[in-house]
Amino acid sequence: MSVLFDPVFGMTAVDAAVDDRAWLAALCEVETALARACARAGLVDLGTALEIGAAADALARRDPAELGRAAQADGNPVIPLVRELRAAVGERAGEEAADAVHLGATSQDILDTAAMLITSRALGVIGADLGDAADHAAALARAHRDTAMTGRTLLQHAVPTTFGALAAGWGAGLDHARARLDAVRSELPIQYGGAAGTLAAVHPHGFDIVAALADELDLREPAGVWHAERSVVAELAGALGTASVALGKPATDIVLLAQTELGELRESSPGGSSAMAHKRNPIAAITARAAAAQAPGLVATLLASGAQELQRGAGGWHAEWQPLTALLRCVGGAASRLRASLAGLEVDPAAMARNLGADEPEVGHAGDLVDRYLDRRR
Amino acid sequence: MSVLFDPVFGMTAVDAAVDDRAWLAALCEVETALARACARAGLVDLGTALEIGAAADALARRDPAELGRAAQADGNPVIPLVRELRAAVGERAGEEAADAVHLGATSQDILDTAAMLITSRALGVIGADLGDAADHAAALARAHRDTAMTGRTLLQHAVPTTFGALAAGWGAGLDHARARLDAVRSELPIQYGGAAGTLAAVHPHGFDIVAALADELDLREPAGVWHAERSVVAELAGALGTASVALGKPATDIVLLAQTELGELRESSPGGSSAMAHKRNPIAAITARAAAAQAPGLVATLLASGAQELQRGAGGWHAEWQPLTALLRCVGGAASRLRASLAGLEVDPAAMARNLGADEPEVGHAGDLVDRYLDRRR
Amino acid sequence: MSVLFDPVFGMTAVDAAVDDRAWLAALCEVETALARACARAGLVDLGTALEIGAAADALARRDPAELGRAAQADGNPVIPLVRELRAAVGERAGEEAADAVHLGATSQDILDTAAMLITSRALGVIGADLGDAADHAAALARAHRDTAMTGRTLLQHAVPTTFGALAAGWGAGLDHARARLDAVRSELPIQYGGAAGTLAAVHPHGFDIVAALADELDLREPAGVWHAERSVVAELAGALGTASVALGKPATDIVLLAQTELGELRESSPGGSSAMAHKRNPIAAITARAAAAQAPGLVATLLASGAQELQRGAGGWHAEWQPLTALLRCVGGAASRLRASLAGLEVDPAAMARNLGADEPEVGHAGDLVDRYLDRRR
Amino acid sequence: MSVLFDPVFGMTAVDAAVDDRAWLAALCEVETALARACARAGLVDLGTALEIGAAADALARRDPAELGRAAQADGNPVIPLVRELRAAVGERAGEEAADAVHLGATSQDILDTAAMLITSRALGVIGADLGDAADHAAALARAHRDTAMTGRTLLQHAVPTTFGALAAGWGAGLDHARARLDAVRSELPIQYGGAAGTLAAVHPHGFDIVAALADELDLREPAGVWHAERSVVAELAGALGTASVALGKPATDIVLLAQTELGELRESSPGGSSAMAHKRNPIAAITARAAAAQAPGLVATLLASGAQELQRGAGGWHAEWQPLTALLRCVGGAASRLRASLAGLEVDPAAMARNLGADEPEVGHAGDLVDRYLDRRR
Repeated sequence: MSVLFDPVFGMTAVDAAVDDRAWLAALCEVETALARACARAGLVDLGTALEIGAAADALARRDPAELGRAAQADGNPVIPLVRELRAAVGERAGEEAADAVHLGATSQDILDTAAMLITSRALGVIGADLGDAADHAAALARAHRDTAMTGRTLLQHAVPTTFGALAAGWGAGLDHARARLDAVRSELPIQYGGAAGTLAAVHPHGFDIVAALADELDLREPAGVWHAERSVVAELAGALGTASVALGKPATDIVLLAQTELGELRESSPGGSSAMAHKRNPIAAITARAAAAQAPGLVATLLASGAQELQRGAGGWHAEWQPLTALLRCVGGAASRLRASLAGLEVDPAAMARNLGADEPEVGHAGDLVDRYLDRRR
Repeated sequence: MSVLFDPVFGMTAVDAAVDDRAWLAALCEVETALARACARAGLVDLGTALEIGAAADALARRDPAELGRAAQADGNPVIPLVRELRAAVGERAGEEAADAVHLGATSQDILDTAAMLITSRALGVIGADLGDAADHAAALARAHRDTAMTGRTLLQHAVPTTFGALAAGWGAGLDHARARLDAVRSELPIQYGGAAGTLAAVHPHGFDIVAALADELDLREPAGVWHAERSVVAELAGALGTASVALGKPATDIVLLAQTELGELRESSPGGSSAMAHKRNPIAAITARAAAAQAPGLVATLLASGAQELQRGAGGWHAEWQPLTALLRCVGGAASRLRASLAGLEVDPAAMARNLGADEPEVGHAGDLVDRYLDRRR
Repeated sequence: MSVLFDPVFGMTAVDAAVDDRAWLAALCEVETALARACARAGLVDLGTALEIGAAADALARRDPAELGRAAQADGNPVIPLVRELRAAVGERAGEEAADAVHLGATSQDILDTAAMLITSRALGVIGADLGDAADHAAALARAHRDTAMTGRTLLQHAVPTTFGALAAGWGAGLDHARARLDAVRSELPIQYGGAAGTLAAVHPHGFDIVAALADELDLREPAGVWHAERSVVAELAGALGTASVALGKPATDIVLLAQTELGELRESSPGGSSAMAHKRNPIAAITARAAAAQAPGLVATLLASGAQELQRGAGGWHAEWQPLTALLRCVGGAASRLRASLAGLEVDPAAMARNLGADEPEVGHAGDLVDRYLDRRR
Repeated sequence: MSVLFDPVFGMTAVDAAVDDRAWLAALCEVETALARACARAGLVDLGTALEIGAAADALARRDPAELGRAAQADGNPVIPLVRELRAAVGERAGEEAADAVHLGATSQDILDTAAMLITSRALGVIGADLGDAADHAAALARAHRDTAMTGRTLLQHAVPTTFGALAAGWGAGLDHARARLDAVRSELPIQYGGAAGTLAAVHPHGFDIVAALADELDLREPAGVWHAERSVVAELAGALGTASVALGKPATDIVLLAQTELGELRESSPGGSSAMAHKRNPIAAITARAAAAQAPGLVATLLASGAQELQRGAGGWHAEWQPLTALLRCVGGAASRLRASLAGLEVDPAAMARNLGADEPEVGHAGDLVDRYLDRRR
């Protein structure tokens, strides 16, 4: 997270969902939910679960930096968090209650489940911006169903099309990206397996706790323990990568159509320059492109770290935390900036006609594409 | 393609589906299917379509190298192919028939549709190998439901598990990867939009041809024209990336468990060494890892090229052809080599017990994970 | 930056050099240096340059978050910074002095030069950690020149070697990485070109200012204006990528040799577990691997954004800021954690002998490799 | 390698240096050179070395596909090659001569050294094309020193510059890329370490053979054995990545300046279209961009595979062979296509003046940049 750069790339939209405080809160929420799930399975009494929840709530408000420093020695923040949580619960409710904290769990159970919570919330924000962007694209498609412009292939004039047809293509990509992210979001699983992923410590209540934990957090039961089988992360990365493509496409087109010589599009709040007072830069689209361009490398990192060793990866797991967070930020940022660009996009049909160099070109066929898109959308 | 290296990585399994001859054949098939689709739409008479098909069949058997050389001038192989096809049809059936070739199409329509055909066929091969690999993993899970071994987290001994539970995790990943690839495969669309993606040249028959072309080739009708909206390619790349993770995971575990000191697994056909007669290298797993490791970078290339300009990308489109082919080869190779590794995997329960250092550890809970996996699989 | 996760990956070592405050400070330093350079070229009087410096110093201490928010509208933080700096100088020293701020510069001149300052300082930190790590590796090589262990190829026992020979290989890689980073560091250039990279506004004093600015900041004069010719960034990315490989290699070996069954190495401060009290995880090496593993994707992002448009990239430039910062953080983190791992690495010659299974193997030849390495190092 | 696609991307320029036949020939050359080096060290008599060379020459002309198939079982092509070479030498010169084949070597020694030979030759071709491209850029800079055009930042009109200044920037990047590749090329080392990298089998003649082998092949002596310390590969990858950026930049600019509305540049042999007779696509620049765009992902693959295990990587090493070959092909292709684009680039000063919209803008300062570039180049 960067307070200096994130706003430029629209990443502030998702920052609240993925920043250090959100991570800390999510870790605490998972410990609370686990205690409640264990209570539902009859392994912990409800009073104790409530005490754990209260203590976890308090911990969620502490300084994440302190926890970060404490995390270095053992390699993840859950270990010191559990230590503190046990101490706090012990003070509130005695030794036995303290033993009920983190029952049957391993650090990775908590961290992976928290990552899924974080992801789910970030995807909520991203989905909303993607949806708004798609709505704007659809509105542009409808409004400019018959606005003729030149088609450009390999950036050379081709044959006529309409701006509506172009915008319909943007919308189709955005709709698809959103649907895909929604589908992935609805499948995000909890993680619960214990020390070596066998649910040994809570046998034979493991699957009951799995089900209850998923229910508590509104996540899904996983197909199995996925401590070192990271298809979940890979699929999520792929869906975010796809969204980055769908977001980068309209941003690229807007930048191109806003070129001085073309002048077919203009952002309603263009950016200025420190050196040239006359500049009208389509800065929302430019920064949307820049945010989206940061996604493919992060996807590759998550995939390259995905084949993890035996019952817990010796580095590959750890290598996911920051790239996943950064990827949510990039895609969320691109969605936010593209939405802003599209929201106030000014279309200049006269410039389109001038560049096309034809008075009344026959472009009815392009309108059919718009209709088809709008029909499918309904 | 490399005749020297492909066999090492199992890529020969998919080579026939994705090599230069396969590409040429697919391009020709699409021209044939387009002629038939135009005939179904009433724009071409059936006899002409049959002549086009016959001429395309003949062209499919020519030397792809010659076509490659001719392709340089215009930047893609479809342009010289259409030139030759028109000439051949003209000779067979006259000028008017020649005009029916490539009707309403642009090069990208043919190349993208051919890419989807190639992909569909390669995914068929990959899916079969993935399926076999998953079946082997499931069989290992069943056979070793109760074979105790030490769990290893961060590559350090943790608590006991069973080999069956580990194999069940492999199987779950492979099953998921296959299901995802099958889902993507069933959605692969044709491309047909004409010069600027407006279906102008065949107006008002465009959508009829789209439907007929999809039907002819057993592909899907696309949501719209996707000349420069590459979500289709991005989603495919993501699914292949996910498969590379699911394939790399068991390969990594096999390599680790076959280490001399561990000796828990052994491949039935281990590899030798040019310098050491005693070596027993788990070479199928090693080369499966190596093939899978080549995927993330290719996924990133496809995503990074995905935001293409206006009605046709000026380089991004072209940058897809070889990485997509290479990605199919890598994932196919990894699936083929992992299948081979799993097919004859020798498990040494005594070594597992020795490393575990416990006579009769309680691992019944791990067996439950196996049962659950096998139940879900049914 | 993440206060929760950075410590785990040793990134705190470079955080102070690359965080938001460091960026803001660097931007302000560059404006100060530019005013002084212009004074040396005779375009600004020295008193004004001193006023600008004083005002920039004050701005460097403001809240970077506020500047970040102001940056969104125009797409980079330099634009609002210059606005504020001009206002502050105007108040202190009048309108004419305000006009001397940012003389002949464009935002990118300031931001790129600040990025080079940041990089230079981060590379200082990274180089020191790399150097320490290499020294530790060399000491291990010397101490274990004749400590026999089994060589392992493809993770199978091969023929005997010595731990010294292995450590010498680590050291050679780390030495090379450091030398390469030092070489790149010594070539980091300033940027100064003005609105379209022609030095128009300060003609004919452009090259004098370039020389003076480089001198003020202890950076190099560039070969030319590099606003959109990003070889500088690409080469830096490549050198950091190379360092990530040199760092990941010993970390991987330590993790492997610390496996329970092998037991040949142990970290002096191993990490624990939230679920298993007996765990002795080589957590410094594990997190060094994890930090290094995040580098390749970031290198790819910087390269993929490198071919920027005409006189200033429309997104590619912007896409560099966060990945470059993250890359410095990853490589710095890996260097810091590997240094820690090597600093207290405990070698178990008895375990090495036991695994080797030979009493007094002939390994004198391996010692020669150590000697050669230590000789070269001198 | 693809006979269908390689010509489109100019990869045919390097194909002869990196294809399967070139690899096979290089492997055989290394075995020959090793025999001669051992002869120089007194371990093999010269007559035997000559017999080995003759047999290796004969093997170099066999079908690489057969060798590829034989390579699968052991995981690399050197193992069957050595088997055949020993048999051939045995037949020609007896058992004792056969024993002199591959003396003290492991497969990786041969394959890595062959990879460096291949790389050196490919870099020769790439360097020549880069050099020609740079010469063309310099000639354009000189010819258009004073040709005014509008500067464009973020693709919006900024202030005037000259085409010469733009071309000088291209040239500076290409010159730098070439210098960097030349520097890397001059450092490419042989590999020779034997089974576990200790030179055990030829003790105490190891370093003599290393020196002689390097001399025979005109490569460098390495700092140490680098079987699993892959800084050499990482640095090579970084330099090729940098070249891809320097090549992609002018290609991008040419595509943009050739846009129909701008019309400032035109390729002398533009490409056509299968659907539009009037198209004049700057196809050399477009395909140069496409070739360059494939590089970053391959660089990431090589870096991500670089941290290899102990004395020989269990997959990471194998994962280098195809990506390295592909990377040489991409960069070579981009160089070849950009050279072609620049060689016949048509500049339209009238269009530049028209777009600039100023009659005689003051752009003398931009000319200074050209002079400086040309001076440095001398």
